[in-house]
Amino acid sequence: MKDLTTTEILDKTETKYFTFAHPPYELTLESGEKLGPITLAYETYGKLNEQKSNAILVLHALSGDAHAAGISKKDGAIGWWNNLIGPNKGIDTNKYFVVCSNVIGGCKGSTGPSSINPKTGKPYGIDFPIITIGDMVNAQRHLIDHLGIEKLLAVIGGSMGGMQVLQWMVAYPERIRAAIPIATALRHTPQQIAFNEVGRQAVMADPNWRMGNYYDGPKPANGLAVARMIGHITYMSHISMEQKFGRRLRTGKEPCKFGVEFEVEGYLRYRGDTFVKRFDANSYLYITKAMDYFDLLNGKPLNSVFKGLNAKVLVIAFKSDWLYPPYQSQEIVKACKLAGVEAAYCEINSTYGHDAFLLEIEEEAHLIKHFLNRVSNDLAIGV
Amino acid sequence: MKDLTTTEILDKTETKYFTFAHPPYELTLESGEKLGPITLAYETYGKLNEQKSNAILVLHALSGDAHAAGISKKDGAIGWWNNLIGPNKGIDTNKYFVVCSNVIGGCKGSTGPSSINPKTGKPYGIDFPIITIGDMVNAQRHLIDHLGIEKLLAVIGGSMGGMQVLQWMVAYPERIRAAIPIATALRHTPQQIAFNEVGRQAVMADPNWRMGNYYDGPKPANGLAVARMIGHITYMSHISMEQKFGRRLRTGKEPCKFGVEFEVEGYLRYRGDTFVKRFDANSYLYITKAMDYFDLLNGKPLNSVFKGLNAKVLVIAFKSDWLYPPYQSQEIVKACKLAGVEAAYCEINSTYGHDAFLLEIEEEAHLIKHFLNRVSNDLAIGV
Repeated sequence: MKDLTTTEILDKTETKYFTFAHPPYELTLESGEKLGPITLAYETYGKLNEQKSNAILVLHALSGDAHAAGISKKDGAIGWWNNLIGPNKGIDTNKYFVVCSNVIGGCKGSTGPSSINPKTGKPYGIDFPIITIGDMVNAQRHLIDHLGIEKLLAVIGGSMGGMQVLQWMVAYPERIRAAIPIATALRHTPQQIAFNEVGRQAVMADPNWRMGNYYDGPKPANGLAVARMIGHITYMSHISMEQKFGRRLRTGKEPCKFGVEFEVEGYLRYRGDTFVKRFDANSYLYITKAMDYFDLLNGKPLNSVFKGLNAKVLVIAFKSDWLYPPYQSQEIVKACKLAGVEAAYCEINSTYGHDAFLLEIEEEAHLIKHFLNRVSNDLAIGV
Repeated sequence: MKDLTTTEILDKTETKYFTFAHPPYELTLESGEKLGPITLAYETYGKLNEQKSNAILVLHALSGDAHAAGISKKDGAIGWWNNLIGPNKGIDTNKYFVVCSNVIGGCKGSTGPSSINPKTGKPYGIDFPIITIGDMVNAQRHLIDHLGIEKLLAVIGGSMGGMQVLQWMVAYPERIRAAIPIATALRHTPQQIAFNEVGRQAVMADPNWRMGNYYDGPKPANGLAVARMIGHITYMSHISMEQKFGRRLRTGKEPCKFGVEFEVEGYLRYRGDTFVKRFDANSYLYITKAMDYFDLLNGKPLNSVFKGLNAKVLVIAFKSDWLYPPYQSQEIVKACKLAGVEAAYCEINSTYGHDAFLLEIEEEAHLIKHFLNRVSNDLAIGV
């Protein structure tokens, strides 16, 4: 197989901003509350063709942002899915026009709890309304309208990004030709809710959280770091941890008796500490809650979920992913098949755990590339 | 099968105390530090026979204590393994003399970080020396000497209790006739260390922890509650959570936006909150660290671990236990077999996860009862 991961890199990518839902035309959220104005931070790569038929929407996971690919013009940062998106890569920006936007509720340029509430002139904090995966997708739909795209060639995302893919399939089936949900689920199990809830408890237990009203003082960094550490354990597999750390001890001394000794401890603390520098604790609460609320079944029978969808679907799961185990992806496939939707299932034999959707690029890239080729070809010949 | 779980209950059990290692005869710990005097809280059930050959030592897990069975005379509390230990039960107190002691480092009557340091007249806090599973077992050996027992009929325990069983097999092979390690491991994997480390981080992130020096003020209750919640997720299985909670919502209203909504959230918070009332945060740090240090391999080949052991071994694991997965129990069996030790392996088909060693009593009781019968009979006929 040709290596799709080491080719040309997109240079000087830029984040743009789209603002809509200006009062009195606010967006009505699924909760019934209204929110506006709403800004979405987004990036685009490649060129939209004349027919506007080559657009792919990439959806990010819990801690992601709009900067999916290339080198940021602003700070030189590499996009979070850069190995997959770019010229001649799995999602080939020579062929496709790729869009990625930061979710509402986020803290990377889109409107969220750390944004200024126009009514008070202060950050929303927990006055920010509860948001859902449905609300995230509704906001994205406004952006897609703004870009003049009537029908997306594909929606693609992993983890919470995959939930947004599934939501697109249900909420706007007529706006997509194909969908690739990766390492995700139709709804959170109580175990998935439980891990998120403990993370939220860790944040809210931090006295600096102050009911979400911390923007003028110290941040609830300790609580958020603990939440992120819990997350990282669930993102890795038992095997990938064994391979990465074993029981090796760190070198160097620690002043405190309960300091870092095992390498895995050092890794978790490092990941926790770096996360608090780049992420807002309230966004963590809102976004994890949106994931927990997500439930495409909600009492309905499985065969009704994707009824009427006329899109091709590629479902990807990873063998060692115990946070979003393969059986949850198989359930998505089953729901598609029961609704007569064309769906393929690929389980990649990775040891990386849930992180595999960001790391197991080689195989993922080939699967996605060939699937997108087929969708494009079918479109060209009018199938 | 006769139901071994619903028979007679031991009434008015009492916790006793044994103090040893009075200065200048302190106990030398594995770290090289000295500790003394040391008090062990312990309970006994049944009667030691004349030959002193019917004694069984029961070892408790992370949050356990000496009160393993019966109704406490002091407060009416039921012992943590009451369904397994009692007249005619799996561990039959009509036949056996059962001993259970709180580990050193604990907070249930044995010497630990919340005990008064005789040198300062104040609680040790984190001046308490680091303790290991080996130190716990060495202290128990002093108690067994004190009770005049030369050779235990069996040592039995689950989880960290199972680690102590394994340690007895290695440290005092000549003092045991049989061993039953349940749902345990020869050593912690990095994933097991990681879960413990995040719990410790949650405790230490609580500003009330104050470097362990909190005994004259508010306790680090929020941090310890988060640690316990993480623990509870790992003790249950994905299936047992689904069966217990599903995605059901709690009834009743919460004042805060990020209050309890899903039943699983309410359960975790309840378990977290009740734990902080009965457990000391520093003991949590010391005991989890002892588990993480535990490593019977430590670079040695597997066949050398139990070399020279002349005891019968019954290893029990639970299918849905993902915290101490069956493969770790199988490794114990393999180590026994490689050393020529007689070992049987039983994997119970439970959905309770790691908690199964406390809940899956019916099958566990039968396995243990028949195994102990055989060990007793062999002893009687001099095998």
